[in-house]
Amino acid sequence: MNGFEELDFAKLDTSREERTGFPEVVFCSGKTDEQLKEIYKRLLSENGSVFGTRALASQYEAVKDVIPDIVYDKDSKVLYKGRGDFVSPIGKIAVVTAGTSDIPVAEEAAKTAEFFGGNVLRVYDVGVAGLHRLMARMDEIRTANVIVAVAGMEGALPSVIGGLVKVPVIAVPTSVGYGASFEGLTALLSMMNSCANGISVVNIDNGYGAGYIATQINRLAVKGKE
Amino acid sequence: MNGFEELDFAKLDTSREERTGFPEVVFCSGKTDEQLKEIYKRLLSENGSVFGTRALASQYEAVKDVIPDIVYDKDSKVLYKGRGDFVSPIGKIAVVTAGTSDIPVAEEAAKTAEFFGGNVLRVYDVGVAGLHRLMARMDEIRTANVIVAVAGMEGALPSVIGGLVKVPVIAVPTSVGYGASFEGLTALLSMMNSCANGISVVNIDNGYGAGYIATQINRLAVKGKE
Amino acid sequence: MNGFEELDFAKLDTSREERTGFPEVVFCSGKTDEQLKEIYKRLLSENGSVFGTRALASQYEAVKDVIPDIVYDKDSKVLYKGRGDFVSPIGKIAVVTAGTSDIPVAEEAAKTAEFFGGNVLRVYDVGVAGLHRLMARMDEIRTANVIVAVAGMEGALPSVIGGLVKVPVIAVPTSVGYGASFEGLTALLSMMNSCANGISVVNIDNGYGAGYIATQINRLAVKGKE
Amino acid sequence: MNGFEELDFAKLDTSREERTGFPEVVFCSGKTDEQLKEIYKRLLSENGSVFGTRALASQYEAVKDVIPDIVYDKDSKVLYKGRGDFVSPIGKIAVVTAGTSDIPVAEEAAKTAEFFGGNVLRVYDVGVAGLHRLMARMDEIRTANVIVAVAGMEGALPSVIGGLVKVPVIAVPTSVGYGASFEGLTALLSMMNSCANGISVVNIDNGYGAGYIATQINRLAVKGKE
Amino acid sequence: MNGFEELDFAKLDTSREERTGFPEVVFCSGKTDEQLKEIYKRLLSENGSVFGTRALASQYEAVKDVIPDIVYDKDSKVLYKGRGDFVSPIGKIAVVTAGTSDIPVAEEAAKTAEFFGGNVLRVYDVGVAGLHRLMARMDEIRTANVIVAVAGMEGALPSVIGGLVKVPVIAVPTSVGYGASFEGLTALLSMMNSCANGISVVNIDNGYGAGYIATQINRLAVKGKE
Amino acid sequence: MNGFEELDFAKLDTSREERTGFPEVVFCSGKTDEQLKEIYKRLLSENGSVFGTRALASQYEAVKDVIPDIVYDKDSKVLYKGRGDFVSPIGKIAVVTAGTSDIPVAEEAAKTAEFFGGNVLRVYDVGVAGLHRLMARMDEIRTANVIVAVAGMEGALPSVIGGLVKVPVIAVPTSVGYGASFEGLTALLSMMNSCANGISVVNIDNGYGAGYIATQINRLAVKGKE
Amino acid sequence: MNGFEELDFAKLDTSREERTGFPEVVFCSGKTDEQLKEIYKRLLSENGSVFGTRALASQYEAVKDVIPDIVYDKDSKVLYKGRGDFVSPIGKIAVVTAGTSDIPVAEEAAKTAEFFGGNVLRVYDVGVAGLHRLMARMDEIRTANVIVAVAGMEGALPSVIGGLVKVPVIAVPTSVGYGASFEGLTALLSMMNSCANGISVVNIDNGYGAGYIATQINRLAVKGKE
Amino acid sequence: MNGFEELDFAKLDTSREERTGFPEVVFCSGKTDEQLKEIYKRLLSENGSVFGTRALASQYEAVKDVIPDIVYDKDSKVLYKGRGDFVSPIGKIAVVTAGTSDIPVAEEAAKTAEFFGGNVLRVYDVGVAGLHRLMARMDEIRTANVIVAVAGMEGALPSVIGGLVKVPVIAVPTSVGYGASFEGLTALLSMMNSCANGISVVNIDNGYGAGYIATQINRLAVKGKE
Repeated sequence: MNGFEELDFAKLDTSREERTGFPEVVFCSGKTDEQLKEIYKRLLSENGSVFGTRALASQYEAVKDVIPDIVYDKDSKVLYKGRGDFVSPIGKIAVVTAGTSDIPVAEEAAKTAEFFGGNVLRVYDVGVAGLHRLMARMDEIRTANVIVAVAGMEGALPSVIGGLVKVPVIAVPTSVGYGASFEGLTALLSMMNSCANGISVVNIDNGYGAGYIATQINRLAVKGKE
Repeated sequence: MNGFEELDFAKLDTSREERTGFPEVVFCSGKTDEQLKEIYKRLLSENGSVFGTRALASQYEAVKDVIPDIVYDKDSKVLYKGRGDFVSPIGKIAVVTAGTSDIPVAEEAAKTAEFFGGNVLRVYDVGVAGLHRLMARMDEIRTANVIVAVAGMEGALPSVIGGLVKVPVIAVPTSVGYGASFEGLTALLSMMNSCANGISVVNIDNGYGAGYIATQINRLAVKGKE
Repeated sequence: MNGFEELDFAKLDTSREERTGFPEVVFCSGKTDEQLKEIYKRLLSENGSVFGTRALASQYEAVKDVIPDIVYDKDSKVLYKGRGDFVSPIGKIAVVTAGTSDIPVAEEAAKTAEFFGGNVLRVYDVGVAGLHRLMARMDEIRTANVIVAVAGMEGALPSVIGGLVKVPVIAVPTSVGYGASFEGLTALLSMMNSCANGISVVNIDNGYGAGYIATQINRLAVKGKE
Repeated sequence: MNGFEELDFAKLDTSREERTGFPEVVFCSGKTDEQLKEIYKRLLSENGSVFGTRALASQYEAVKDVIPDIVYDKDSKVLYKGRGDFVSPIGKIAVVTAGTSDIPVAEEAAKTAEFFGGNVLRVYDVGVAGLHRLMARMDEIRTANVIVAVAGMEGALPSVIGGLVKVPVIAVPTSVGYGASFEGLTALLSMMNSCANGISVVNIDNGYGAGYIATQINRLAVKGKE
Repeated sequence: MNGFEELDFAKLDTSREERTGFPEVVFCSGKTDEQLKEIYKRLLSENGSVFGTRALASQYEAVKDVIPDIVYDKDSKVLYKGRGDFVSPIGKIAVVTAGTSDIPVAEEAAKTAEFFGGNVLRVYDVGVAGLHRLMARMDEIRTANVIVAVAGMEGALPSVIGGLVKVPVIAVPTSVGYGASFEGLTALLSMMNSCANGISVVNIDNGYGAGYIATQINRLAVKGKE
Repeated sequence: MNGFEELDFAKLDTSREERTGFPEVVFCSGKTDEQLKEIYKRLLSENGSVFGTRALASQYEAVKDVIPDIVYDKDSKVLYKGRGDFVSPIGKIAVVTAGTSDIPVAEEAAKTAEFFGGNVLRVYDVGVAGLHRLMARMDEIRTANVIVAVAGMEGALPSVIGGLVKVPVIAVPTSVGYGASFEGLTALLSMMNSCANGISVVNIDNGYGAGYIATQINRLAVKGKE
Repeated sequence: MNGFEELDFAKLDTSREERTGFPEVVFCSGKTDEQLKEIYKRLLSENGSVFGTRALASQYEAVKDVIPDIVYDKDSKVLYKGRGDFVSPIGKIAVVTAGTSDIPVAEEAAKTAEFFGGNVLRVYDVGVAGLHRLMARMDEIRTANVIVAVAGMEGALPSVIGGLVKVPVIAVPTSVGYGASFEGLTALLSMMNSCANGISVVNIDNGYGAGYIATQINRLAVKGKE
Repeated sequence: MNGFEELDFAKLDTSREERTGFPEVVFCSGKTDEQLKEIYKRLLSENGSVFGTRALASQYEAVKDVIPDIVYDKDSKVLYKGRGDFVSPIGKIAVVTAGTSDIPVAEEAAKTAEFFGGNVLRVYDVGVAGLHRLMARMDEIRTANVIVAVAGMEGALPSVIGGLVKVPVIAVPTSVGYGASFEGLTALLSMMNSCANGISVVNIDNGYGAGYIATQINRLAVKGKE
């Protein structure tokens, strides 16, 4: 009884929810169909629910063989079988994007937050090239406990939002752009250097990570430290 | 009445506390003594308190001329005249460092959090080269609402902490190191790619930014969304 | 008569104004006092006026020996003896900065534009952390024929302005910032990837270059192509 | 009536032409066929014309289903249904390339400028390895109100042109080259550091952006500030 | 007789085992089938065994034509015909990975070490996000003469191990990760800057190189310098 | 009794020698004189000896106040009070440099190895621009259990040595060079990509790290795994 | 008659041989079949011979339609119809590679040199991991007027050769390698920083450029300046 | 008698002139006064002349103590006592700069070439911002056997010259510039990617290296291969 389950190729971290408040989540990318089927079965059996990210359609098909009611969202590429918290989501997490192309990353964040019991407000395509679109929605955004701001190219959206709100902004740079966007590096560096306060940054295209942190903060805001 | 005060060389953001919950903070670096004196006087008069970062000793001397009881901490280089919230700090914010050389950045975070009313737990020099030092303090760290993890060199500390706690970890890369640490870039990239969850990152040596976000989260945990 | 004058160490481009509409300007940085004195004397004699950038105070003293009424601005570090166009500046060029620390670069742009006969509108310290400061001045900015937008850190200002105006925005990244601002590289990349249109970029801290281009555009707007 | 139209996945910026003098342009890359069809229909209906960039041949086929007379240029990948200004283009915009491989980017610039009513002069394959080719065309190039200079590899063309003309040069680095050209980064940096004046730079392969700015300047030169 | 054998396209280093203690190993990547067949035949004939890395399945098929009992491992992509030392492997080499996706690189190291006569202990998927998994195996790992630590993403595993053992740790960064992992560069830099001692680093995904060095050290520990 | 001693500003790792075979070593850089004096005293008292790296001359003076017989080497900047193993150094460690300017880094490695009981062979200034100098010493170098190869500029020395020996080569890139040497980055990358085998790399100028690993390997070669 | 021939899409530089001693060479990469056919026909007709680099097999097929006796080398990807100088090649140019995978780049250099009349000595696969292979051929290499040294990975070969010869070494970094070789950047930087003298560097994989310079030097050595 | 002389801290390469045609040259940077005095004395005694680069004025003073007639040029920082070849310099080497600030690097090249017996033509300040200055000197430049082209900023000069001459161009990037010139890296990359032929590149500010190669080529052109 050492807090993990030994598979041939992996050590499932069965004590993770106790330690961190979240069960182990599956990073599907690069895993074989056989590995995924085994991992999904074990985690579902262990935790009563299972959530994975960056799943290919073919991986979905494979896992469906062993978990027929597994749910797949082809845009955000999350693959999951939900949990009870969905019934009454708590608090509010705003997920905001600069453009249309940032939506898949935003949806990864939103679906992560929803899976772990959060109430999500989506505000998409409100980038700084047309600030009035953002301004028209700011009052609504201000009702959230935490904001996930998703942007590629020059990544200016979190700076603008950060100057207008009281709650933390989790900035997610995306690989949307070309040329000197360097696959999201420019957005990442830009967000790092924001002249506004209250902004912290996760890896390029890491919607899942942002959704996770937003869930942590949302829980704290609703329930306090347990 | 448009929410800012026009100086010759600056526009003081007098509506910032209303918008963001924090008054404008002074980034002293690169400002002349004359500019600083003017800004400190105006903000103190406007807000009843004032806080600045990256102040030189010579800047402290200059500001002391106009605000004799201004307080300067030479390690963290913060320069401030405090506010009432100090009387009864709320919640708990853990500030943790990998090494001794990371302490000045950590103190910038801690003093920021304290200035804005937070209760701070300091745990310094618990880097991963001697994990037992961190483990001996984990139970205490787990009582915090949010953790600021400060590290240079390879920046591994936030990853280790992230796997052991339920609350958000704000990772602060420092410029401590040499050679291929590239003045903190390696720590920054390392923290961005953490295999643990719940970690978001601020700019290199940005203790202030981390203290600000930690304050936001700590407030949410104690009071919820107001 | 081949369009340049041969000095020992340089070839003064005496046909430049005919070719480009601007006389040769002196980049003082790295030149010896003796070289500068010779160059200033020759250019003043040739063109009736002379303009140089990045001059040290000591270089000013040296040149003053040979041109007693030379003018030096210690913030922008321009060193010049003016020309007739100052009498009735034409058109309008807006020079806008995100912060106070960006002012020296902005002044290099403004003084360049003024030296070459442009009318300059200065709007400083209106960065995106407090958008209302910018908004309060937008109507005035919109009256310009061209806008020079100067910003360090994440360099978001040109994007915001670009979405609100009809005229070109010349973006000037500055080396203001620390850590992952990489001495202005982050601002440069950010400006390159703007989601707004009408934005082109010059080198880091290159106020002179922006002032030059703004002059070209301002002239075209006022006089058309001659 | 807040200046934009809400679609499921996007917020069309219907007040953009009023603000900026240009209607919203579609960045086709990464959009689904269904999204594009909807956006093209709405914008055409709203503005009487529509222009998009980086469209795939398959996207052209999709949009043709709903707008049968949509026009597609497979080299520059622009997809548009034109506007009245084509009837009598104004001013002159020179679009110049260093090599044959730079032509697709140059055509994106040229077609953008033409769509928005400019008269375009094309001068292609006049790179610095054979300067006489450029020199033979300089008199013609000098008649333009603005010059778009497109080059990959070492990107030296704008520097040479900049030293010979009175009007602004918009430099467009291209991803043409190999090895240490780093997909256009070398050309971008080179253009940024030009020893000639009057040169500002847009993103790698951003012909559209250069055509847009050239249109702004050309309009100012012909009509002045309206 | 100059210590190499001249082929049309290569010079086989027939004196390498005498000089270095290892025969020449084949880097299959980029070689044609015909070249590989020739090289494998010659080396097998010369040395009585042959080992190659980064072989494609198609290259395996080609070589099998001339060496029917050649062995191919599709995960680690090694292609070899073994040697006598397998009979009684010496010492102990621990090969440890942070995640499941690092296993192919780890297996390249492990199979290299085994081919050259070492006894290998595999401990996979013990990354720092769940430290208890590593701790549960540390006593076993400590029995090895040398440790190969394989990790992508932030590459923190070698730092943690380095603080807990007496023997050298060969750190292998892998290209596992996304975004700001930059194909393994972040892990490489992180390992370079480890705050723990006893860690040296090989190229990204260079399992072979780590297995080679581990073999050298393991031999020294068992037999001393011969 | 948790294996460390708590100071105000640090946690001395008193169980390190038991865990790793080496006592804690002091990285003097960035520590105050007061901190150093305290740390040196405690470690000397705890372990009977003490070793530090990157000490300034002024730090030496400070520590001498409390430990009068502390030894300082101004070239390698090590500061230590020795241990008994010096009496009969074991095995052999070759420390080799490409140039004269690499000697300070090499001496840090050599003195580290000697402090921890190793017998060191120094071979300096044998870079590849004059291979005969290296060849004249190769037989001697081959008698070592491990080789530390120190080089700046293009860092080719470890590759050449690696092809000629049976034992591990620890490559130390140095910041010697200029221009595109990028303070040692070029040497580091070069060493990472060596076409020879048996080479692993430590951080730029990290002579200490190389001396530590060489000591580990030398001990294994002499005594085997204890 | 201005020294070039105007095609629709290109300006053939018909005065190039007179200016530079070499006719225009075709960079086939990125050109359409139709463009290539036209260019090859024109240049062949103009110059009596034609040479191109980086031609695809499909481009060869296209050009063969209009020039049936065109010659294609599939390894080096050169496509040419030769000239008289082949009859009696002059001087000697040594082309040397570190590995087998560098041969295609080396052959581009060798065939370029041969096309322009040089006598080429090929010495392949003599990298520094087995120095004796190089040493066995050095006397022969020393007879050349110029040496082209081709290497990927750490690019150490030119440094070693440079220390042993009297004539210029043209270093060609190749993209051979993986991980931190960064597609040839490491080899390029390494060659730039050679501790040996007489080494200058061309772009990654630029065999053609090296062959061209070697031809220039070889001609000077044989005929002097004409 | 192994072709080098052993000093305490260095191995003087006494067989270098026989191998390479040049005696060992001293890189003064980073050497102590004592080391320099010893090295200069030994080399002068061995070779009858001595040449060093990057010498500080204080190093000159030190060496003058032991070699009173040593010659120092404070701009190029070369320190030498000449040789007989000065009497009748051979051939012609053109050294060309883009700007005045590039002259120190150019002089290092010129003085190196002169020391080793070459006839040098200096053409300074002919950068591409005023092409007519270069064109006025091209006929003279064309008489050289080899051209050293020195430029900072965008480094376009070698490309322009390369398209106009028959002999090799050795391109020397300089650290002249600011912002995105990255201390010469932009010029280096630009030169690497020249669209002109016949250009090879040496390290940033490496005037010595260019002068050395130019000497090799000039000798070949005058005397052929000896």
